[in-house]
Amino acid sequence: MAQRIVRGFPATSNDAYPLNMITFLKHAARNYPEAEVVSRNLDGSLYRSTYGEVERRVRRLAKALTKLGVAPGDRVGALDWNTHRFMELYFAVSGIGAVLLELNPRISAAERAYVINHSEARFVAVAASLRPLMEPLAGECPTVQGLIVLDDLGTGVGESAFPAAYDYEALLAEADEDFEFPWIEETSACTACYTSGTTGKPKGVYNSHRAMYLHTLAIAQALHMTQDDVIMQIVPMFHAQGWGMFFCGPMLGAKLVFPGRYTMEDPSPLVDLLVKEKVTVTCGAPAIFLPMLHHIKNLPTKPDFRGLRMISGATEPPLALMKGYDELGGAQVIHAYGATETAPLVTVNHLKPSLRGLSEADRWELRKKQGLPVVGLDVMIEGPDGTPVPRDGKSVGEVLIRGPWVTRRYHNDPRSDESFTEDGYWRSGDAGTLDPNGYLKITDRFKDLIKSGGEWISSIDLENAIMAHPDVLEAAVIGIAHPKWEERPLALVVLKEAAKGRVNKEAILDFIRPHFAKWQLPDDVLFVEAIPKTSVGKFAKRVARQQYAGHYGA
Amino acid sequence: MAQRIVRGFPATSNDAYPLNMITFLKHAARNYPEAEVVSRNLDGSLYRSTYGEVERRVRRLAKALTKLGVAPGDRVGALDWNTHRFMELYFAVSGIGAVLLELNPRISAAERAYVINHSEARFVAVAASLRPLMEPLAGECPTVQGLIVLDDLGTGVGESAFPAAYDYEALLAEADEDFEFPWIEETSACTACYTSGTTGKPKGVYNSHRAMYLHTLAIAQALHMTQDDVIMQIVPMFHAQGWGMFFCGPMLGAKLVFPGRYTMEDPSPLVDLLVKEKVTVTCGAPAIFLPMLHHIKNLPTKPDFRGLRMISGATEPPLALMKGYDELGGAQVIHAYGATETAPLVTVNHLKPSLRGLSEADRWELRKKQGLPVVGLDVMIEGPDGTPVPRDGKSVGEVLIRGPWVTRRYHNDPRSDESFTEDGYWRSGDAGTLDPNGYLKITDRFKDLIKSGGEWISSIDLENAIMAHPDVLEAAVIGIAHPKWEERPLALVVLKEAAKGRVNKEAILDFIRPHFAKWQLPDDVLFVEAIPKTSVGKFAKRVARQQYAGHYGA
Repeated sequence: MAQRIVRGFPATSNDAYPLNMITFLKHAARNYPEAEVVSRNLDGSLYRSTYGEVERRVRRLAKALTKLGVAPGDRVGALDWNTHRFMELYFAVSGIGAVLLELNPRISAAERAYVINHSEARFVAVAASLRPLMEPLAGECPTVQGLIVLDDLGTGVGESAFPAAYDYEALLAEADEDFEFPWIEETSACTACYTSGTTGKPKGVYNSHRAMYLHTLAIAQALHMTQDDVIMQIVPMFHAQGWGMFFCGPMLGAKLVFPGRYTMEDPSPLVDLLVKEKVTVTCGAPAIFLPMLHHIKNLPTKPDFRGLRMISGATEPPLALMKGYDELGGAQVIHAYGATETAPLVTVNHLKPSLRGLSEADRWELRKKQGLPVVGLDVMIEGPDGTPVPRDGKSVGEVLIRGPWVTRRYHNDPRSDESFTEDGYWRSGDAGTLDPNGYLKITDRFKDLIKSGGEWISSIDLENAIMAHPDVLEAAVIGIAHPKWEERPLALVVLKEAAKGRVNKEAILDFIRPHFAKWQLPDDVLFVEAIPKTSVGKFAKRVARQQYAGHYGA
Repeated sequence: MAQRIVRGFPATSNDAYPLNMITFLKHAARNYPEAEVVSRNLDGSLYRSTYGEVERRVRRLAKALTKLGVAPGDRVGALDWNTHRFMELYFAVSGIGAVLLELNPRISAAERAYVINHSEARFVAVAASLRPLMEPLAGECPTVQGLIVLDDLGTGVGESAFPAAYDYEALLAEADEDFEFPWIEETSACTACYTSGTTGKPKGVYNSHRAMYLHTLAIAQALHMTQDDVIMQIVPMFHAQGWGMFFCGPMLGAKLVFPGRYTMEDPSPLVDLLVKEKVTVTCGAPAIFLPMLHHIKNLPTKPDFRGLRMISGATEPPLALMKGYDELGGAQVIHAYGATETAPLVTVNHLKPSLRGLSEADRWELRKKQGLPVVGLDVMIEGPDGTPVPRDGKSVGEVLIRGPWVTRRYHNDPRSDESFTEDGYWRSGDAGTLDPNGYLKITDRFKDLIKSGGEWISSIDLENAIMAHPDVLEAAVIGIAHPKWEERPLALVVLKEAAKGRVNKEAILDFIRPHFAKWQLPDDVLFVEAIPKTSVGKFAKRVARQQYAGHYGA
C-alpha cells in the first residue's frame, strides 16, 4: 500500500497473536480428531486416516525436518500427486517457519531447475513415481542437499544423484511426536508457487501465513463450506496451493478426500470417490469435469449428487458442462476466477438473492460470468486511460486486483514493476467488465485483445465462433500488426482429418459472419497442423504471434 | 504473546493491506447495493433501505463527524436501540479512525458517567427516546463537547445541558457524499465496550479493526451464514457489538433487520419481523427467546420457521426452550458462548458429523453444552495447580481463552493483571470442562464454585435442583467461609407467595437430596424476599456473599 495509513487509538485486542497456518491443523486435531482424511494410493487402494493422526504425523515430520537441518526461512520443494503426504508437507514445512515450494511436474526440466535454483530450495520431497523428473536435475541444482522420497511405488529409496535421499516414512518413524510448533511472524512466507506463464521464466509468488490464513477463511465463506461438507482435492496441489481447498478441511473439521494420481483419460477413480466418499464439494478445471461428466452419464445407475458443488476454475466452463451436471439432478458447477498471484480466489459466481427472479435463460447467461468479488478484495477495471471504467457490464479494461492475499511483487524479479501498480494492485493481464450487480466477466486476455482502428476485437469470441464449426478441431485468433489498423485478427485453424482440403477460408468466414460486424472478422484464415500450446495446455499465443508477425506486412 | 516469535522468509503478499471494518460496507455497497436493510422505528413503522443507501449515509456521517472535529483516535459514544442508525455510527465513527463507544442504557447513571469519563468520549450520539439517560450527566462528563441526537421521537433537538446538541439527520443532510475513507492501521481500536461486571467499576475492552474483522469472518463461518440469509439483530448492539451479528450483513451481502426498541413483555414486534421479513438467523438471550416462543405458540396460524437458526447466548438455554422451538418445525436454537472480552464469540454448539448417530436423548444433552471452540481461538481449562486439565469431560477448571479477537488487557486499568496470563490468555472466571469431542461445558462461575474440604461443589447444580421445586420462585447458592471445610454452600430461596411459611429448610433439602452426595448439600437454607441482582439481571452473588459472610462462623 502506498497510501498513508492513519493510526487511531490503541486497542486492547491481542493483535500480536499471529495468524499461522498450523492453527487450522491444531484446531482439527483438538476438536475434530476423528474426522476422516482419505487418500487414494497409486495402486487404487485407499489410505484412511484422521486429523488426529495427521497432526501426529505432521509433528513427526516437523521434528524430522528440523533434525535434517531445515530452519525457519528455508525453502523445501514438494513434487507429488494429490495425497495426504502432500498436505502433511504443507503443514510441517510451514509449521516450522520454512517455505513449502510447489513443484509442477508438467513444466519442462529447465523450468523446474530454474524454480528450484531461484528459490534456493534445500530439500525436495518427491513421490517415487515422479522421481524421474528430479534425478536428472541433480547436477544443476546445487542448493538441494537431498531428496525426501515419498515411496508410493514401494520400491525403496535406493541411490540418488543428489547428495542424499531419505525415506519419508522412515524419517517419520524415527522422529518423536513431541514437536511443539513455534509461533511464526505472520508476514513470513509459508508457501511459494511459481507462475507457469506463457512467456519468459516462471515468476515466484511467496504467500505469507497471514495471506493464506485469510484466504482459507475467505474461500470457505465464498463456497459456503461447513464442517458437514466432504471436500475432494481435484485441482493439483502444486497449482496455487490447490486453490487452498484442502486447507479448508482442517479449518472446518470437514472430511477430506485426496484422489492421488489421476488422468483426464480415465476419470473413473474421481467419480468413484465422489460417490463412495459422499463428496459434497470439489474444485477443478472444465478439462477434468468434462470427462467426469461423460463417465457419469455412462454409469449403469445414476449416482445421487444432490448438494454437490463443483467449483470450476482455470477457464470459463462451457454451458454444456454446467447444464450437463445440472441435468444429473442437483450437482452444481460454480464458476470461480483467480490466479497464482491472487492465492488464488478472486470471484465466485453465486446467484444473488436479488436475482432469484431471473428467467432460466438469463440465469445461464449469468452463470457464465466469473462472479462476484470475494469479500476483502478490491477488484477494479482499468480503462485505456488508466482510470476505472464504469461498472456497466460493457466497458472493457484490464482487471486489477488487490487485497490481503494478493501478491505485491514477485520474489527477486525485476519484472515486478510491469505487473503491480504503486497503490498495490496486481495487473491480471485479463480484460473484463463489471456489471451493475457486481459480476465480473473476463472477455479476453488483455494482451490478446486486438486493437483495430481504436476499437477492441475479442479474440475469444472469434475463436469460440470458429470452433463451433463442425469441421474444426481447434482454432486460435491472434492480433497481427497491420500498417493501417494497428492490428488485425488472424485465425489459425486446425481442421478435423476428414475435412482437410475440403474446407476453405471463405467457408470459415461465412460460418461466423452472422455473429460479427464486418470489421471484426479476421483478415485471413490459415489452416495449420497444430496450434502451439503452453505446458498447461493453453494456446501459446505469443509464440504464434511471433511466428506470423509479418503476415499483414507491417 | 509473550512467546518468542520466529521470523521466516519474506513473503511477497500484500501484508501491509490493513484489515479495516469499512471494507465490509464498501463490499456490500459495490456488490450488493440493492440488498435490503430494514429498521423498525419507535412507532412500529418500518424504515427500508439498502446497502447502497447506507454507505452513502455513512459517508455523509463521516464527513459530518470530521467537520465537528472528530479525529482519528477520538472516542464517540452511542446510546441507541437496535437501529440502522446505530450501524451507521459503527461504520462512520470507526471508518474515520475514531472509536465507537458502546453505551449501555441499563447500567446506573454513575456507571455510565464512569464509562464516558474513562474513555474520554468527545461526543455522544443518543436516541431522543434515551436522552433522559444522558442529559443529567452533562455536569459530570467534561470531555463531551456535544450530543448528536437521533430524533426517533420526532420532537426536535431543542436545548441541551451539554455544550451543544446536533440533529443527526440534519448533519447528514448538510454533508457531502464525497468522503473517502482513509486506510487505518489495523491495530487501531474501532469499538470500545465496557464490561458490566458484578463487582467494581466497568472495565474497558477496546477492539481493534483487525480483531473485529477476523471476528466477523469467524462468526459468519461458525453460524454457517451466507448471502442468502436474512439476519435479525436481537442482541442489543451495545452488548459486545451486538455479538457482531450486524457486521455479517454487509460482509456477506445478506439482508439485515433491526427491530429497534422492544421489550421482554411484548415480543410481538420481534415475531412479526421474523415472519414478515423471512428472517433465517438471529441471536439473543433465552430471556427474550422464551417470551417469543410463548407468543408464537399462541398465534392463530403457525408460521413457517424451516431453516431458522436462533443463536442463544448469555446463559445456558433451558432444554424446554430448545425443544419448544424444535417442535415449531425446523427452528433451531443453537447454544453459543462468549463474553465482552472475547468480542464475543468463543464456542458454538453444532452437532459434529461424527456424532450424527447419537440417540435423541444424547443429542439434547449435547446441545446443552456451550459447544466447539471457533477456529482461530485457543480454549484451555486450567486446573487448580495451574496446568491444563485433561479433556475428559469431567475435570473442572477455569476456562482460559486466547486468540486474535480476544482482549489482552483492559484499557488503562490496573485490574488487568488479575485477568490475563503472561502468555496471552484471558481468565474467563468461568469453570468448565472440555470433553474428548472438543465440546466446552460451563459448569459454574469459577468464583462461585464452592471449595469444600478440597473438593468443588457446583452452585449452579444446586440452584437448578432447588428451582425445580414447585414452590420455589428463585434460588441462589453461595459459598460461605467455614471454620473447618474452608467453604460450605448456603442456599438463598425465594418462595412463591402461596408457599411462604408452608415450606421449610428440610422440605427443600429432602427435595434435592436424591441428586447429590451428602457433603454437597447446603448446610443451611435461608428464605429471603429477593435475591440481589446486577444491572443485567444476573444474581449478584458477591453482594450476597458479603451479606452472609459470617453465617458459618468463620
